[in-house]
Amino acid sequence: MNNKVEPKTLSGFMELMPQDQILFDKIKNTIEEVYSKYGFYHLDTPIIESSEVLLAKAGGETEKQIYRFKKGDSDLSLRFDLTVPLAKYVAKRYNELIFPFKRYQIGKVYRGERPQKGRFREFYQCDIDVIGNETLSMFYDAEIPSIIYDIFKKLDFGDFLIRINNRKILSGFFNELGLSDKITDILRIIDKLEKIGIDNVKSELAFLGIDEEKIRKISDFVTINGNSEEKLSKLEELNIKNPEFTEGVNELKFVINNLKSLKLDESNYIVDLTIARGLDYYTGTVYETQLKDYPNIGSVCSGGRYDNLATYYTDKKLPGVGISIGLTRLFYQLKEANLIKYVDDSVAQVTILPMTNNYDYVCDIAKELRNNNIKVDICYLDNKNFKKSMRYADRQNSPYVIIIGDDEVSKGIITIKDMKTGTQHQFELVEFYKKLNGQSMKI
Amino acid sequence: MNNKVEPKTLSGFMELMPQDQILFDKIKNTIEEVYSKYGFYHLDTPIIESSEVLLAKAGGETEKQIYRFKKGDSDLSLRFDLTVPLAKYVAKRYNELIFPFKRYQIGKVYRGERPQKGRFREFYQCDIDVIGNETLSMFYDAEIPSIIYDIFKKLDFGDFLIRINNRKILSGFFNELGLSDKITDILRIIDKLEKIGIDNVKSELAFLGIDEEKIRKISDFVTINGNSEEKLSKLEELNIKNPEFTEGVNELKFVINNLKSLKLDESNYIVDLTIARGLDYYTGTVYETQLKDYPNIGSVCSGGRYDNLATYYTDKKLPGVGISIGLTRLFYQLKEANLIKYVDDSVAQVTILPMTNNYDYVCDIAKELRNNNIKVDICYLDNKNFKKSMRYADRQNSPYVIIIGDDEVSKGIITIKDMKTGTQHQFELVEFYKKLNGQSMKI
Repeated sequence: MNNKVEPKTLSGFMELMPQDQILFDKIKNTIEEVYSKYGFYHLDTPIIESSEVLLAKAGGETEKQIYRFKKGDSDLSLRFDLTVPLAKYVAKRYNELIFPFKRYQIGKVYRGERPQKGRFREFYQCDIDVIGNETLSMFYDAEIPSIIYDIFKKLDFGDFLIRINNRKILSGFFNELGLSDKITDILRIIDKLEKIGIDNVKSELAFLGIDEEKIRKISDFVTINGNSEEKLSKLEELNIKNPEFTEGVNELKFVINNLKSLKLDESNYIVDLTIARGLDYYTGTVYETQLKDYPNIGSVCSGGRYDNLATYYTDKKLPGVGISIGLTRLFYQLKEANLIKYVDDSVAQVTILPMTNNYDYVCDIAKELRNNNIKVDICYLDNKNFKKSMRYADRQNSPYVIIIGDDEVSKGIITIKDMKTGTQHQFELVEFYKKLNGQSMKI
Repeated sequence: MNNKVEPKTLSGFMELMPQDQILFDKIKNTIEEVYSKYGFYHLDTPIIESSEVLLAKAGGETEKQIYRFKKGDSDLSLRFDLTVPLAKYVAKRYNELIFPFKRYQIGKVYRGERPQKGRFREFYQCDIDVIGNETLSMFYDAEIPSIIYDIFKKLDFGDFLIRINNRKILSGFFNELGLSDKITDILRIIDKLEKIGIDNVKSELAFLGIDEEKIRKISDFVTINGNSEEKLSKLEELNIKNPEFTEGVNELKFVINNLKSLKLDESNYIVDLTIARGLDYYTGTVYETQLKDYPNIGSVCSGGRYDNLATYYTDKKLPGVGISIGLTRLFYQLKEANLIKYVDDSVAQVTILPMTNNYDYVCDIAKELRNNNIKVDICYLDNKNFKKSMRYADRQNSPYVIIIGDDEVSKGIITIKDMKTGTQHQFELVEFYKKLNGQSMKI
């Protein structure tokens, strides 16, 4: 038979080489570790849901991208985010859950976008949300940036900045100016401030038909500068009496004050009046996170506060606050930017090369190492070709290689090669085990 | 609006309560830990593949169960196992991979079976495979049971038995009897030996038209008893000259001998001549694993050696050996059998209840605990209702609850309640931190 099928992977689907997978997993595990250190439950919902449930809210662009199909009589869809499944989950189990309900979920979601560089049709989202029953303390709005902070400190991708705003400030301000009908367009323009500068923002606002006086006020508002506290004082000095505006300022103040209690370094967060996020969803605090050295990557972690998680499924009022990290895209971008370090990334910490038939001896060593929580790979080649074995070990990238020949067996020793320095040492087995158990080995 | 959509989850899809998810994750993490301790790479392939690629081999029952659909012009399918994606991956990256290539993958697969108790349409498989280039040492056939052994020792679901056989012994034996055309039916009958007894096996064999003399030989063969070594000697004593049979016996002997080197407890594995697994796929060693106290659950971990992983994609000869654990089903069955222990399973090790407005003090404690790798949940309730807070803590199931009221703040102390004993202790903060950093805390 020679009719082979080409073993291809679909475009828009990330499938990594083993070495890259190690790096990807490291990032994923770091995120998961921090999420769980803040006491969030792990959830794992199905990837397939009934279309009726999944598309209760969706529409427009999202609905077009959805993988939707029939199986038998069932109309099914693949989840396109982790928020809708959460809403379903909480509505369904409202009576069994404890509130505030804190959950994290890290999983693949599906969007059939036109594939292009850096865009994926299957991608990981890493979400946390805190859901309240009727009410939810604003303290959770402060805890969220603390979680983002811990993650990006640990990931060590260089300096980062968490930008924080409150949607109530924006809508209060624009309502006060009588511009609530133009708010979507205005925010879209303001969002470009950093890229196009204030003069271009002004002319684009004029193009919307906004009068000069109001444009001046908007310009003054979005260019309010200083550190977070200075910005908050200046907002109060604007002397705007709109109750929504005032509430937003107070909430933002509360969050910023509590970030101090949470001991975040002030250089890593800032009040930023220009960020808004999805207008129809978020209702209070909003977050974006930028890697300072790579502003082009855009926000790597975003989210905010919403009034009601699950209106499509229940009458219960379920306010929440959460964030999401688009891990697949982030990983792709970090790799492109050469921001991911390849140092010491190996699957096994030790590779053992048996050059003897005395497997008892070899397996003893492997067992002892594994009992000490060391990842051990044994390379079995039937021909015991030393050159091939070393080539294997070399490509496995293990920091240490243990070579066991008949000589080692008869002398009761092991030979360890440090692959970084190329130096080789011999130990008596007993001595080696002692070192291991005393954890004085650097392995 | 009152047209709510019912927030239902599809039948055949497992979606756990948070407490159950913790248990599920524990099992999953244990499996992953052992896999990686043996130096296997982690792979993560797409859930969606092109139907052409995924169904290159499939047919019959499997093909009917597949979730297959169109998106635009693309004919797509959801993966129904992790072996086909592995075959694709290895064939595609043949020139880049190091052989033997050892990979583990833990992921969801999809089969649209008729839903019934304990059957799932979306379920986790946990697979490891070692793939050789042209050849693959038989040592890997011995390493596999060692991995199974470590996993089920760690999982601690009671006593277990790994049954090992070699397909070559079976086909050599039946070829020698001139019964190679009936082999599928014979093996299906033999497989029922434990359930129906040898007399019923004999009459079913007679029903196939097999003559008395041959039935006697088959009966002698399948009822060979003793420990693994005794069975192997008795096989040799049968004095069958078929070369395939002899090769199978030698391979099985080699595996069993090496399990001794690997220090497996002999009570946990046995040569079992009645197991065969998928006939058209496995070609050498085959494995099944049984929980001794729960034989009805069937094999919880199965697999074997195959000659050629990826014939549908490549001419390269890629022999392999591997196993799979059907985690979702296993979890379901273990829960049904009450084999999963609920002791001490909480998401947070400490729940902090702030009964003060001094959040500086509260956050300091949380930070110090988290820095010591302790999972900490802070329950923020705006009304600081003590009863509600304690109820939350109680349901969170954290072993320790820390209560911080204004009294604690002014005295510089913390109050810790041990939720198991109900006892409450107060510590000075400085003293508490010292204990933490000296890791003398039992938390």
